[in-house]
Amino acid sequence: MSSTPDTAETRQDRYDRGIELLTRIDGEAGQRVVDSLADVSPELGHQIVAWGFGEIYRRPEISPRDRQLVTLGMLTALGGCEPQLDVHINAALNVGLTPGEIVETLLHAAAYCGFPKALNATFVAKKVFAGRGLLPVAAG
Amino acid sequence: MSSTPDTAETRQDRYDRGIELLTRIDGEAGQRVVDSLADVSPELGHQIVAWGFGEIYRRPEISPRDRQLVTLGMLTALGGCEPQLDVHINAALNVGLTPGEIVETLLHAAAYCGFPKALNATFVAKKVFAGRGLLPVAAG
Amino acid sequence: MSSTPDTAETRQDRYDRGIELLTRIDGEAGQRVVDSLADVSPELGHQIVAWGFGEIYRRPEISPRDRQLVTLGMLTALGGCEPQLDVHINAALNVGLTPGEIVETLLHAAAYCGFPKALNATFVAKKVFAGRGLLPVAAG
Amino acid sequence: MSSTPDTAETRQDRYDRGIELLTRIDGEAGQRVVDSLADVSPELGHQIVAWGFGEIYRRPEISPRDRQLVTLGMLTALGGCEPQLDVHINAALNVGLTPGEIVETLLHAAAYCGFPKALNATFVAKKVFAGRGLLPVAAG
Amino acid sequence: MSSTPDTAETRQDRYDRGIELLTRIDGEAGQRVVDSLADVSPELGHQIVAWGFGEIYRRPEISPRDRQLVTLGMLTALGGCEPQLDVHINAALNVGLTPGEIVETLLHAAAYCGFPKALNATFVAKKVFAGRGLLPVAAG
Amino acid sequence: MSSTPDTAETRQDRYDRGIELLTRIDGEAGQRVVDSLADVSPELGHQIVAWGFGEIYRRPEISPRDRQLVTLGMLTALGGCEPQLDVHINAALNVGLTPGEIVETLLHAAAYCGFPKALNATFVAKKVFAGRGLLPVAAG
Repeated sequence: MSSTPDTAETRQDRYDRGIELLTRIDGEAGQRVVDSLADVSPELGHQIVAWGFGEIYRRPEISPRDRQLVTLGMLTALGGCEPQLDVHINAALNVGLTPGEIVETLLHAAAYCGFPKALNATFVAKKVFAGRGLLPVAAG
Repeated sequence: MSSTPDTAETRQDRYDRGIELLTRIDGEAGQRVVDSLADVSPELGHQIVAWGFGEIYRRPEISPRDRQLVTLGMLTALGGCEPQLDVHINAALNVGLTPGEIVETLLHAAAYCGFPKALNATFVAKKVFAGRGLLPVAAG
Repeated sequence: MSSTPDTAETRQDRYDRGIELLTRIDGEAGQRVVDSLADVSPELGHQIVAWGFGEIYRRPEISPRDRQLVTLGMLTALGGCEPQLDVHINAALNVGLTPGEIVETLLHAAAYCGFPKALNATFVAKKVFAGRGLLPVAAG
Repeated sequence: MSSTPDTAETRQDRYDRGIELLTRIDGEAGQRVVDSLADVSPELGHQIVAWGFGEIYRRPEISPRDRQLVTLGMLTALGGCEPQLDVHINAALNVGLTPGEIVETLLHAAAYCGFPKALNATFVAKKVFAGRGLLPVAAG
Repeated sequence: MSSTPDTAETRQDRYDRGIELLTRIDGEAGQRVVDSLADVSPELGHQIVAWGFGEIYRRPEISPRDRQLVTLGMLTALGGCEPQLDVHINAALNVGLTPGEIVETLLHAAAYCGFPKALNATFVAKKVFAGRGLLPVAAG
Repeated sequence: MSSTPDTAETRQDRYDRGIELLTRIDGEAGQRVVDSLADVSPELGHQIVAWGFGEIYRRPEISPRDRQLVTLGMLTALGGCEPQLDVHINAALNVGLTPGEIVETLLHAAAYCGFPKALNATFVAKKVFAGRGLLPVAAG
């Protein structure tokens, strides 16, 4: 596909391509995750950057905003992914989703995943919004 | 069905019907959850009350005690729902389940969900029981 | 505990104790599961009978009816357990739960696990009820 | 909120509001699900329509297209929801998502839910696309 | 790391590296999965081969046999991954695990994931073993 | 089977057999879990020891090292089992798995369970390794 053309790339090339996108979308939080892996599983950090962002996320078939919407749905459904929800709710704001759209997404999740998982995700959103001075969320 | 007769109700009517039941069953813990949603997702709080309690929970087809039994099973199986287990183990006590019945339910869960999830739920029960002066739980 | 007194039991004793209960509750369906394991994992079959039923299920702290309620909640929440739901919805009927109580339990599950898992479980119930001539389920 | 104004509504009003939206989005597949619940759990069918669609889905805070994106993510993450994925991949096409966007969404899911769940969802998409004459999906 | 040296590779190089390993381990079943993705999500097929096998699976830090053990545990725990269990139980046999070790692994899973998921996985093993003339499995 | 010969055993016999193995593998951490259950669900503690270790874990069909590999895979896949991962990553070290093999196992998990669950498990490993002076993990 056009998004990953068949030119020769080194491992470093692929990392560089991913880290630029990771930083743009996840901001410092993404970098912090990668840094915290350096002494325990640098390869996991490398693959999140080089593959997750460098190969998958950067494909233009759906927009970064759409990817965050899907990701919020998945993380809510998986359960137990509050640290990742923190990163990705920040990312969702970074790519243009509003707090109102994010909480609506999590309300929608209640119908498909049940109230407990929707609540867990919404309280992560509350914490993220509080840290960015975005509370209260305006009613629809 | 008789439990939700076809009379006209406002959004507020439905909320009022649910909040009365939520308070009776979950006590202050339920109200605290709803309150903590007020500045981030008041609609999620509304729907938990108006739909979860006002439409579903209040149906007489199974008793509040039976609903809590089922709910303990579901929250244990879902995993990652410790905050909800806290609320619902309190609720289980409120509707008449004994500590012995609750821990037996979670022991039963070990056979269907495995030991890790049963352990996580049992340690929430321990915390709730400790807070209510119910430890040690009498052996069967 | 009184339910598993500390007298010496052989492996066969424990199996015998469990198989009697399994047959009473699950009927032929339970036996069929054990039989179908005979040529692939007889030890799994043994442990379901000797431990699951002989040690856990037979404890008197909660009733067989309550165990089935909890089990329906867990199997619905776990997802992908349709074969086990088939066995346990039959078992639920065997221990005295009515079709109306079973579908109400699964409706209740919608609020905690979401509609998709509640639907999957309800369609298993429909199949079981059809096979036992219990459709339509009387409205509440 | 403006989307659910506080005017008195009967149970039937709420159902009517939802069924119109369900039909528009899910087409015949949604109606078939509701119909197939009629003899086993009509209340579950009612609540999917009246609450899921009439109260949640119809809120304008995010678009039907966005709701389907999130839903595809959740159903893939939950696992074991192939029948619901069938309905919602059809729905996704109905609200304007292209086959290319849908498979990209499921490729994205591989990074968050792993390959097995992404594969299961993609094979449901293949079946839906085949039924609508949309194979092969054009490369990006 | 030594397993993915920093030399320039094309997209095709990475695919070639993975397909050789996929074929060796999964046999025809792996190839069939990739082939069946060709008209719906060729990129997913590419990434399973080029990344899953070419980058991750081929790393020498743990052996193919150990990877299959872990994979059987994960697929059993995830639930709803019977098609992948079929492929990977075949793969487990291909890399030297015996039927007895495989069913013991799934028995072990019962303690951590519960009986229902252990049963689902064991019945997939039975089907695979039957197809390869490996039934009955010799008792330990 | 030879691993659980059909001789008469008391409840205490079975416990004794399991506690020896639990202590050897899990060290003090396993004992702490059992102790912390004493006042809330002693029967759950008993069954983890007497059944989980005394009946299942001690079977010789697969080695303790292999059981830990599978267990790491399952706990990662289940999600929300960080306390159990702590115990079992310690146990994995106790039975001879190296830090490098453990993080490779969790990297492998990323392909099957997705990055979020692999990250959660890897950060538990980091904490355990730090407590045992095993950081940094040597690159492969």
